[in-house]
Amino acid sequence: MPKISQKAQDMPASPIRKLVPYADAAKSRGIKVYHLNIGQPDIQTPQVMLDALKNYDEKVIAYSHSAGYIEYRKVLVDYYKSINIDITPDNIIVTNGASEAIMFAMQVCMDDDDEIIIPEPFYANYNGFAKSSGIKVVPINSHIEDGFALPPISEFEKVITPHTKAIMICNPNNPTGYLYSKEELLTLRDIAIKYDLFIFADEVYREFCYDGNKHFSVMHLEGLDNNVVLFDSVSKRYSACGFRVGCMISKNKELMAAAMKFAQARLSPPSFGQIAAEASNKVPKEYFQDVLKEYDERRMIIYNEINKMEGAFCPKPKGAFYIVAHLPIDDADKFCKWLLEDFSTDGETVMLAPATGFYSTPGSGKQEVRISYVLKCEDLKKAMHCLDVALKVYPGRTL
Amino acid sequence: MPKISQKAQDMPASPIRKLVPYADAAKSRGIKVYHLNIGQPDIQTPQVMLDALKNYDEKVIAYSHSAGYIEYRKVLVDYYKSINIDITPDNIIVTNGASEAIMFAMQVCMDDDDEIIIPEPFYANYNGFAKSSGIKVVPINSHIEDGFALPPISEFEKVITPHTKAIMICNPNNPTGYLYSKEELLTLRDIAIKYDLFIFADEVYREFCYDGNKHFSVMHLEGLDNNVVLFDSVSKRYSACGFRVGCMISKNKELMAAAMKFAQARLSPPSFGQIAAEASNKVPKEYFQDVLKEYDERRMIIYNEINKMEGAFCPKPKGAFYIVAHLPIDDADKFCKWLLEDFSTDGETVMLAPATGFYSTPGSGKQEVRISYVLKCEDLKKAMHCLDVALKVYPGRTL
Repeated sequence: MPKISQKAQDMPASPIRKLVPYADAAKSRGIKVYHLNIGQPDIQTPQVMLDALKNYDEKVIAYSHSAGYIEYRKVLVDYYKSINIDITPDNIIVTNGASEAIMFAMQVCMDDDDEIIIPEPFYANYNGFAKSSGIKVVPINSHIEDGFALPPISEFEKVITPHTKAIMICNPNNPTGYLYSKEELLTLRDIAIKYDLFIFADEVYREFCYDGNKHFSVMHLEGLDNNVVLFDSVSKRYSACGFRVGCMISKNKELMAAAMKFAQARLSPPSFGQIAAEASNKVPKEYFQDVLKEYDERRMIIYNEINKMEGAFCPKPKGAFYIVAHLPIDDADKFCKWLLEDFSTDGETVMLAPATGFYSTPGSGKQEVRISYVLKCEDLKKAMHCLDVALKVYPGRTL
Repeated sequence: MPKISQKAQDMPASPIRKLVPYADAAKSRGIKVYHLNIGQPDIQTPQVMLDALKNYDEKVIAYSHSAGYIEYRKVLVDYYKSINIDITPDNIIVTNGASEAIMFAMQVCMDDDDEIIIPEPFYANYNGFAKSSGIKVVPINSHIEDGFALPPISEFEKVITPHTKAIMICNPNNPTGYLYSKEELLTLRDIAIKYDLFIFADEVYREFCYDGNKHFSVMHLEGLDNNVVLFDSVSKRYSACGFRVGCMISKNKELMAAAMKFAQARLSPPSFGQIAAEASNKVPKEYFQDVLKEYDERRMIIYNEINKMEGAFCPKPKGAFYIVAHLPIDDADKFCKWLLEDFSTDGETVMLAPATGFYSTPGSGKQEVRISYVLKCEDLKKAMHCLDVALKVYPGRTL
């Protein structure tokens, strides 16, 4: 029997998915599980996008252009124009979700063993994309005490080596909910110029900013046209995860020409998803106002409830729909598994994501969990009640 | 300005796409171009699949399971059962077209610099997938004189090294149209067992076999459950390239568990495409009979017309919808570009794929082109007329 690769053996399993069998088992015992472990919103996809597909009457569902339908890319150009980002269709390659965009950028910009600096905790699948691309993630720590702000320049400089090729941020941040300020982005700009680095920015949660905060994009940074690669997606913005339509954006022509070779090899992004996504220019403004209001209420429920629990705390997130909370527990992996295997109150429990999977430094995040506020307020309150009860009886509590 | 990776610089450009700007220029000069360069069929996608999507009424378009909807995988199980392939839903991971399936398998089975033997000419994007996965393609030559049959065992054994991890075939073959016999598959089986190798098989053209020939799948080989990985897709079978729905199939549990880590990192295959593909079990049998009859007629037009041209010949293809033809020309790349740049007859010309891009041995295929018979018969006749006229006036003709 031939052996699988070392690369596959080393590939990290998704920390969000590894507890799924325990959740399934709990459900089969009749327990209701509140899923706060995954970024799959319950918000409706805009009807106008679904109608576009229902009204689509092509008889042959063909490959699109490898960079995506030009009509859809023009819609994207207009969208970015509305947020003061000035690009052309040639600056865009439409991808199978932001996931593929990130993998393209890693492959186009980095060779084996090149290093990418990412403030941790970070979106766990970046580890998988890096492993799959043969590159090395170098984490620098951000801290729950200051709301997971960007670490100071000195922390970056400590780990920069001749192999460092890029810095990656997610803004607003998954898992922390942190929103980077203009000043922090300018700091990143200085580092990128000084050390000649690429800046990769995952901005798929751009629309979700709270308390009147405005999003400042890497694309707004001046003088960085050749350094910046932006990743985006319709998944979160329009609650359209199943479309699998994302994009990579860069004004670096050499970079985009190289990325097109990867895009052409896999032929094209999904046609149906693009047809629906093209109708995003018809989504009424009220859709976002309503969605943002809903998420804001949810955010405040989680934030308030967590901080009421003894020994628990979390910073007030400024964006996205995640919170990283510190809990009075010995081990987040054990706790999250215990919630599914050994705990229930009134026949209900809650599924959370252990934060350990969002750190690349071993041992970090053991007292932290990520909570996605993707359920309606009523359910979130019930889920927080489960967590509150659970923390009082969990055998590994540290209070 | 930071430098792009060496990997990206080395990534081969798609030989099928690189002439596109010349075709566009020809069209802008008012010339009609017959596209025989790409495997995008003009056949209609079955209406029942498109209707499934029109009738789909989910309000939140969510991620599917990372391995694909279980309902769709069950439909696939039934499909494979109908062709005597006995698998379970756990043996299937639904992918973004067969392209992603091939990349998953390369990453799961092979480490950097491991070698995969592929008879050439082969589907050009295998080169891209290999480069992107960091592995090495070792070609062995198949020959137009014997219709591109499987090279003898001795040719495989000449190139097998300790780094050899897999052999890959495409059956029926793109670009040659060759259909491997049961005996040839048994030969591959012997090599795989003797040298403990994976067998990768791209069978996306399985339905397209002519002259009463039956397809024999790698999944029909006994005793190879841990060696075989099958790649499949709805793209060609149902003329549904834009769905971006393929799959990888293997009974090797360790391999599939590892592949799931890659599948989970990219979250899920496209939901819309899967919904439409799930209705494939409602496609009437007559659809395939009609499609096969149509392709067969097209095949015979190309085969007969090519072999009538002075100095040109091609084997009679047994499957898929491609022919590799030998032409009396100095250089296929120059000729195909000349067809678009400098030639037309009655305001028409033809776009072909130079076969050089389907060989990995430099200098091979210089007198060969790949012709996709994806247009209706009337257009194919006109395209063959263009080619016939062109061959008589091409400055680099070798007659």
